[in-house]
Amino acid sequence: MVKRTRFDDSDCPVARSVDAIGDWWSLLIVRDAFDGSRRFGEFQRSLGVAKNILSARLRALVAGGILETVPAAGGGAHNEYVLTDKGRDLFPVIVALRQWGEARFFAPGEPHSELTDRRDGRPLRPLRVYAQDGRPLTPDETVVSKVAEV
Amino acid sequence: MVKRTRFDDSDCPVARSVDAIGDWWSLLIVRDAFDGSRRFGEFQRSLGVAKNILSARLRALVAGGILETVPAAGGGAHNEYVLTDKGRDLFPVIVALRQWGEARFFAPGEPHSELTDRRDGRPLRPLRVYAQDGRPLTPDETVVSKVAEV
Repeated sequence: MVKRTRFDDSDCPVARSVDAIGDWWSLLIVRDAFDGSRRFGEFQRSLGVAKNILSARLRALVAGGILETVPAAGGGAHNEYVLTDKGRDLFPVIVALRQWGEARFFAPGEPHSELTDRRDGRPLRPLRVYAQDGRPLTPDETVVSKVAEV
Repeated sequence: MVKRTRFDDSDCPVARSVDAIGDWWSLLIVRDAFDGSRRFGEFQRSLGVAKNILSARLRALVAGGILETVPAAGGGAHNEYVLTDKGRDLFPVIVALRQWGEARFFAPGEPHSELTDRRDGRPLRPLRVYAQDGRPLTPDETVVSKVAEV
C-alpha cells in the first residue's frame, strides 16, 4: 500500500479534518450512521463494498473517535456502530456535501434522496456562511489568517 | 492501481459529491484555491506532495469542472488554476470541515489558521443547519426520504 500523505500536524483545521476522515468515502459511512444504520450488514448493503474494506474503514472511524461500538440493541452477540459526539459534529459537513450534490449532480426532475425536517417533511434551508454580525459572506469576503493564537 | 469504488450513479447527493471530489485530500487543493493559490508551484509548496501526484489531482479537478485553467495573470506562458462557479459552491463544505477541525483537533491555545471576515477580522459564525421556518435542527430532527421526485 502506498504510504499516505499526512496532514495531521498541519496548522490548518481543514487539513486535520481531512486527515482524520481518511479515505474520502468514509463520509458515506458517517452519512449512513446519521440515517440510522448501526449493523455491519446495514452499512455493507448500503455501500456495496467488500467486507474487508468496510471492516478496515469502520475500524479507522472507531480509532479516530468518530464512531464507537456498543452492544447490539436487541441483546444479540454482535456489536453495533454509533456516532460519537465528535462524529455527530460532522452533520454540517454531510449537509453541505448533500446540498452541493443536489445543486450540481442531478438533472432537473431527476430523483434523489432528500434530507427533510422530521416535523413537516420540508427540505432544509441551504447552508450559508455568516459573519459574526449576521451578514452572509461570499468566499471573497473572507480571508485566512495563516496562524493565529487563540 | 486499485479500481476505485464509484458512487456517481447513486440517488444520494452526498454520494455523488464524494465521488466527484475523488481523492480525499483534493479538498485541500480547493481550500488553497479559495485562499488565493493559482499557480502549480503555489499548490505544491502548500501541500508538499509530489509533482506527478499534484498534476493528476489538478487534472481530475479540471475534468470534474471544479477548477478551470486560465492564462497566467501576468501574461506568462503558464496556465493558472481558478475555481469555477461549481467549485466556489464548495465554500460551505470547506468551512464546515474547518470548524469541525477547530473544535476537535486543536488543544486549547494551540495556534491554527483562521478564516475571518475581511471587513472586521473576526472569525465566522459556526455553521448551523436550519429548517425552512428558521429553527436550528439537530441530526435527530431530520430524516432522509430515500428517493423523492423533485
